[in-house]
Amino acid sequence: MLGHREPGIYGSLSLSEINRLLEEEASKLQASIISMQSNHEGVLVDTIHEALGKHQGILINAGAYTHTSVALRDAIAAVNLPTVEVHLSNIYRREEFRHHSYISPVAIGQISGFGVQSYLLGLQALVHHLREKS
Amino acid sequence: MLGHREPGIYGSLSLSEINRLLEEEASKLQASIISMQSNHEGVLVDTIHEALGKHQGILINAGAYTHTSVALRDAIAAVNLPTVEVHLSNIYRREEFRHHSYISPVAIGQISGFGVQSYLLGLQALVHHLREKS
Amino acid sequence: MLGHREPGIYGSLSLSEINRLLEEEASKLQASIISMQSNHEGVLVDTIHEALGKHQGILINAGAYTHTSVALRDAIAAVNLPTVEVHLSNIYRREEFRHHSYISPVAIGQISGFGVQSYLLGLQALVHHLREKS
Amino acid sequence: MLGHREPGIYGSLSLSEINRLLEEEASKLQASIISMQSNHEGVLVDTIHEALGKHQGILINAGAYTHTSVALRDAIAAVNLPTVEVHLSNIYRREEFRHHSYISPVAIGQISGFGVQSYLLGLQALVHHLREKS
Amino acid sequence: MLGHREPGIYGSLSLSEINRLLEEEASKLQASIISMQSNHEGVLVDTIHEALGKHQGILINAGAYTHTSVALRDAIAAVNLPTVEVHLSNIYRREEFRHHSYISPVAIGQISGFGVQSYLLGLQALVHHLREKS
Amino acid sequence: MLGHREPGIYGSLSLSEINRLLEEEASKLQASIISMQSNHEGVLVDTIHEALGKHQGILINAGAYTHTSVALRDAIAAVNLPTVEVHLSNIYRREEFRHHSYISPVAIGQISGFGVQSYLLGLQALVHHLREKS
Amino acid sequence: MLGHREPGIYGSLSLSEINRLLEEEASKLQASIISMQSNHEGVLVDTIHEALGKHQGILINAGAYTHTSVALRDAIAAVNLPTVEVHLSNIYRREEFRHHSYISPVAIGQISGFGVQSYLLGLQALVHHLREKS
Amino acid sequence: MLGHREPGIYGSLSLSEINRLLEEEASKLQASIISMQSNHEGVLVDTIHEALGKHQGILINAGAYTHTSVALRDAIAAVNLPTVEVHLSNIYRREEFRHHSYISPVAIGQISGFGVQSYLLGLQALVHHLREKS
Amino acid sequence: MLGHREPGIYGSLSLSEINRLLEEEASKLQASIISMQSNHEGVLVDTIHEALGKHQGILINAGAYTHTSVALRDAIAAVNLPTVEVHLSNIYRREEFRHHSYISPVAIGQISGFGVQSYLLGLQALVHHLREKS
Amino acid sequence: MLGHREPGIYGSLSLSEINRLLEEEASKLQASIISMQSNHEGVLVDTIHEALGKHQGILINAGAYTHTSVALRDAIAAVNLPTVEVHLSNIYRREEFRHHSYISPVAIGQISGFGVQSYLLGLQALVHHLREKS
Amino acid sequence: MLGHREPGIYGSLSLSEINRLLEEEASKLQASIISMQSNHEGVLVDTIHEALGKHQGILINAGAYTHTSVALRDAIAAVNLPTVEVHLSNIYRREEFRHHSYISPVAIGQISGFGVQSYLLGLQALVHHLREKS
Amino acid sequence: MLGHREPGIYGSLSLSEINRLLEEEASKLQASIISMQSNHEGVLVDTIHEALGKHQGILINAGAYTHTSVALRDAIAAVNLPTVEVHLSNIYRREEFRHHSYISPVAIGQISGFGVQSYLLGLQALVHHLREKS
Repeated sequence: MLGHREPGIYGSLSLSEINRLLEEEASKLQASIISMQSNHEGVLVDTIHEALGKHQGILINAGAYTHTSVALRDAIAAVNLPTVEVHLSNIYRREEFRHHSYISPVAIGQISGFGVQSYLLGLQALVHHLREKS
Repeated sequence: MLGHREPGIYGSLSLSEINRLLEEEASKLQASIISMQSNHEGVLVDTIHEALGKHQGILINAGAYTHTSVALRDAIAAVNLPTVEVHLSNIYRREEFRHHSYISPVAIGQISGFGVQSYLLGLQALVHHLREKS
Repeated sequence: MLGHREPGIYGSLSLSEINRLLEEEASKLQASIISMQSNHEGVLVDTIHEALGKHQGILINAGAYTHTSVALRDAIAAVNLPTVEVHLSNIYRREEFRHHSYISPVAIGQISGFGVQSYLLGLQALVHHLREKS
Repeated sequence: MLGHREPGIYGSLSLSEINRLLEEEASKLQASIISMQSNHEGVLVDTIHEALGKHQGILINAGAYTHTSVALRDAIAAVNLPTVEVHLSNIYRREEFRHHSYISPVAIGQISGFGVQSYLLGLQALVHHLREKS
Repeated sequence: MLGHREPGIYGSLSLSEINRLLEEEASKLQASIISMQSNHEGVLVDTIHEALGKHQGILINAGAYTHTSVALRDAIAAVNLPTVEVHLSNIYRREEFRHHSYISPVAIGQISGFGVQSYLLGLQALVHHLREKS
Repeated sequence: MLGHREPGIYGSLSLSEINRLLEEEASKLQASIISMQSNHEGVLVDTIHEALGKHQGILINAGAYTHTSVALRDAIAAVNLPTVEVHLSNIYRREEFRHHSYISPVAIGQISGFGVQSYLLGLQALVHHLREKS
Repeated sequence: MLGHREPGIYGSLSLSEINRLLEEEASKLQASIISMQSNHEGVLVDTIHEALGKHQGILINAGAYTHTSVALRDAIAAVNLPTVEVHLSNIYRREEFRHHSYISPVAIGQISGFGVQSYLLGLQALVHHLREKS
Repeated sequence: MLGHREPGIYGSLSLSEINRLLEEEASKLQASIISMQSNHEGVLVDTIHEALGKHQGILINAGAYTHTSVALRDAIAAVNLPTVEVHLSNIYRREEFRHHSYISPVAIGQISGFGVQSYLLGLQALVHHLREKS
Repeated sequence: MLGHREPGIYGSLSLSEINRLLEEEASKLQASIISMQSNHEGVLVDTIHEALGKHQGILINAGAYTHTSVALRDAIAAVNLPTVEVHLSNIYRREEFRHHSYISPVAIGQISGFGVQSYLLGLQALVHHLREKS
Repeated sequence: MLGHREPGIYGSLSLSEINRLLEEEASKLQASIISMQSNHEGVLVDTIHEALGKHQGILINAGAYTHTSVALRDAIAAVNLPTVEVHLSNIYRREEFRHHSYISPVAIGQISGFGVQSYLLGLQALVHHLREKS
Repeated sequence: MLGHREPGIYGSLSLSEINRLLEEEASKLQASIISMQSNHEGVLVDTIHEALGKHQGILINAGAYTHTSVALRDAIAAVNLPTVEVHLSNIYRREEFRHHSYISPVAIGQISGFGVQSYLLGLQALVHHLREKS
Repeated sequence: MLGHREPGIYGSLSLSEINRLLEEEASKLQASIISMQSNHEGVLVDTIHEALGKHQGILINAGAYTHTSVALRDAIAAVNLPTVEVHLSNIYRREEFRHHSYISPVAIGQISGFGVQSYLLGLQALVHHLREKS
């Protein structure tokens, strides 16, 4: 499980907080997760490529790259791992250019607008999807 | 709690099934819900207006009206009840005209693509939002 | 005289208040009016069709349907009764999608932005138009 | 056979006339039809849903809803009954917004511009299509 | 009667087959037709010009030229003969650029999507239109 | 009160007629008005600037400048006087480029399509607005 | 005859030169012309209004106002005098925004790209048009 | 001199009439012209290619091909002969799609709207241009 | 092998030169080719139709028709022969309207910008593709 | 030095204040400036034309005309004097229609968003540019 | 002070030259600056995040990322440090896609077109802004 | 020779395979190449900058960055080395957003759709171009 990218500017506390909550949620779901954060599109792409064979699914908040990165989309499509897209804010209440996501057409689904809850619900959705398939 | 609209064509079983699962989820969350379904935009609008003072939040799958109904949007904005928008399918994988929702800018957030899970996650998100506020 | 549609959510008081003011204004103008309100596009269309032969003109606030209903436009064009379009708010100060009205090209004119005054001015304009023609 | 919607404003005579001509045509084709007319999008949607299992095909003039109703499109797609779309007038000679039909991509084909003949030709096309398939 | 243009690539059999069916239909309708086929826009334009004074109407499947030829449109408008536009396939189910026809605004009407039936229904519509006028 | 601009080509009679009617209406409303007319965008802008501190509101028919003048819009926004926008004709029945007004987003409201009545209704609306505020 | 507007920056010589050539051409055509030049949209509008009853036609090079002035268009439409639009340069070889003229839809025709010849050909066209009508 | 294309449907008289008038005008200008007319884009392209080395300029009314033919544009650009584009009607008063010309950016200039006069003025403009260059 | 269309205006030498180089290249590749050139869209369409059963692939430079001809696209799609699209110039460095090709979505691939080399590389690509398939 | 246009509504004080600061800055830079302000597009155009031969450069805040005046752009292009465009506010933070400037493509550069500082920085940039060239 | 990004290809000399000039200017303004340059969007984002608490403002030339990077915009918005956007060239004289900046709506202002002067003027503007606030 | 970027997800084998084939082809052409691959836009930009003075040309498959990276385009334009753009798949058969390349306007030409052959043909084209120039 990888790839949630959260603006570092919210402080390391907040980021580690999300990670802690995600791990609690994972534990409840009897799943294990690995987190990573980067502001570098290329690092995110590399990480997704490396997930192939190592992880079963991807929970991703691609932040600003959601709206501009064909590379992230292609990476997700290439590894072909079930992916859930999450957003802290409701992107449809923000600027016009944030209403389009390059990632949603290659994801299972999208959860947007519930703050940290978006991550926790996204993790549930991903685990549920993986268990249903098997 | 009201307003989830699910295409009747999926059969009454499926619809009652969703309702049963929603009620189980509500029961886990110690919340109570009331469901309704209609193919009539006007009936949906009336129901939302009537929710004011009776319910604390709205979980809505507006189906096809998501993309065409300014009336539903205005009704939600008018009653000003916390609203969560859900979709069975990932609307961003479908026709271009389904990528735009009149409802999302007046909702807390949107959950799209996880089948019946979209409803259950949406209910969690709504209850969480209502409890956080109080 | 028919068809002013006002969001019920403003409360029945407000709606009956507008009706009372409209009746006072009608009385000053030595005209008589009949009011109706509905959130159902189909009911509005039916009412317009039924107005033919019974009423001399239409004063309409089509609310959200202003921007989405070709059916209302066609109904007004079909009965070919002089129609005045009114809006409580200045629709040109609101979201882009509210700047387009399907009704204005089949109406005599449009009055937008003056609150309840929009109705009273609209009634004056309609009565003046009907008297000028005869 | 259901769903032809014809503006009521053309008078009940005209509507019953179309129905009479359709029945004559059906009789020639050794088919039986059931007609309905409504200005309510929701009623049209309900009727299409109810056609499943009762009828073999749909002949529809969706009037103004042709250009605005995703709900009608989804209903036709959901029941998956062969559907022929007809229009009295040539919609491509009218306003720009009438050139787009939400229904044509889910219909077998479209017949537009031949007045009442559009219905009769549409019925022929539908019956021919149903017989060819069986 | 002229101008139906059918991709030669469907084989001469298929083309002569359509012609044979059209002649049978014409014979039932007590009408006579003359067919021609060309892949040359200029030849189609010449043929339409020459139809003036010789023929009473035009049944045309302009194929790919439907979407690109202002010259065909101008020729039809210039001879001012009643014209019915037909298409084998439902052009509204195909690529975006096939949804626009330069011919439909100068035709009586359009029939699209019923295979060879489109021709036969189109011939009926044309003959009916010509008889109604006289 | 200033700024109604009326095409001089309607003759000075017509213009003075409108002024006379406006003054009668003003007198009924116990208000006083000052009229001016110019074909010069700059003169209109200057006049609006000069209104600050001298007048309480603006009734404006900006004619062709409605659709092209950001300068008029900025002038109205700058003096921040309540402004009512009026049009003799229904601008939504005319060319596409007349459907957009730079002035309406900085006006209280707009009245369009009632001929000279548009001015008289506009004056009522303006006076009503000014009295309500005080 | 009035209204040719030529950028003063080409020097007064050049402008008087065009006027001299126009007068020579007018003399050959046994017509008389009056020239004016202004950089003020309002002055051009006033001059067109004043032409009514004094002149028989308008030869206009509206320069930059061609592309932005609805007021000039409305003035020409209002006086309803035959108008010929001329341009020194070929406006279709220049920036995209110069390809649209507000004036051409209210003019008899347009001549663009022949330098001073555009004026002389335009004068011929105007005189020819005026003589043909009478 | 070549390439004026005139809808054959205006009758051979009219076409030969234009040719006669063009020849008279050419004779006044001490120039000689050769005319051709075709409804075939390819024939027009061939004729333009063949003009190279034989003729000094091109006077062209490309009719409907004006708006759709990149091939004509490329042919004119390739032979690099001075070209004047003419239109009988004012193309800016007609349908939107006629406002764009593929030819004008490769022509010296354009004359539109003066009927047969467009040809005669165009010939003058072309001869004047050729003499000025030499 | 057929259909390379090269503007005749480059002179017969240049055209025969390309053919000679293509034949040399074909000879190296142990393939045989047949060339044709035409400025007539219809002739190109006919030639493509006739290729069915006679040739194994198509190397095409559709010149200006690349951007306007749906008929060429449909012909290539209909014969369903492997097609390689070539361009002498880099079409993405030229006018906006040359950036779109109707042919590329029905071709194996496109080679653009290398002058005569585009043809030779295209031939290699086509032969390679044909050999790989068999 | 000319052409800075500042909304008069900011009061003559503010305007004279800017002029005073500009003169101080000019004095530091050992340059002399002449200021003018007008709400009339035509006056601004005239002033720019008159600058030719009298001034060495232009510092312009075209206010609302920035977005609508092709005439100002053409005047600046015609006199061909180095021009610096300044704006008090950051025009890219305002309405969409203020993001486009007709002036910037004919200016050396643009400075936007620094209040009165925009003028002072603009003057520096202009003087620096003029000294660098000589 | 950070974040000016300058295409390395201008040579290290040029880059260090700009830095030297910036430091001289900073020294005149009694300010201190720290420079960095990177071709990596992620590195620029990281650097902006790290500026929080260390620097008082940002002077940025985002080069090509100006037009494509939502990540840079979000980083600037997140740290909420006063930011001045500078460009060496006048971006409004270049390709259409360079006219839009994701950064300008989150910057104080923009300076574009004055070469190295853009940096020096930008530094002045930033320092002036910071001193005015305190 | 540098810069071909190939999605790592195709496995290192495939990538080294392409490199091996490229080296064989280079050897046939008596050229030498250096390969690199990265998912980082910044690394690609750096590599292009570093190519200046070291390499004679660039063969690039920019993958997803083709459609989003102005930085890559600017880097190629800045080093001004002959560049050939290649794509494994036919980008014109894929999603709309892949039809636009920021790189093609600064490349010699583009080869798209021939799988690994695209690289080999691209290398030939580049070497041919470099030899022709010298």
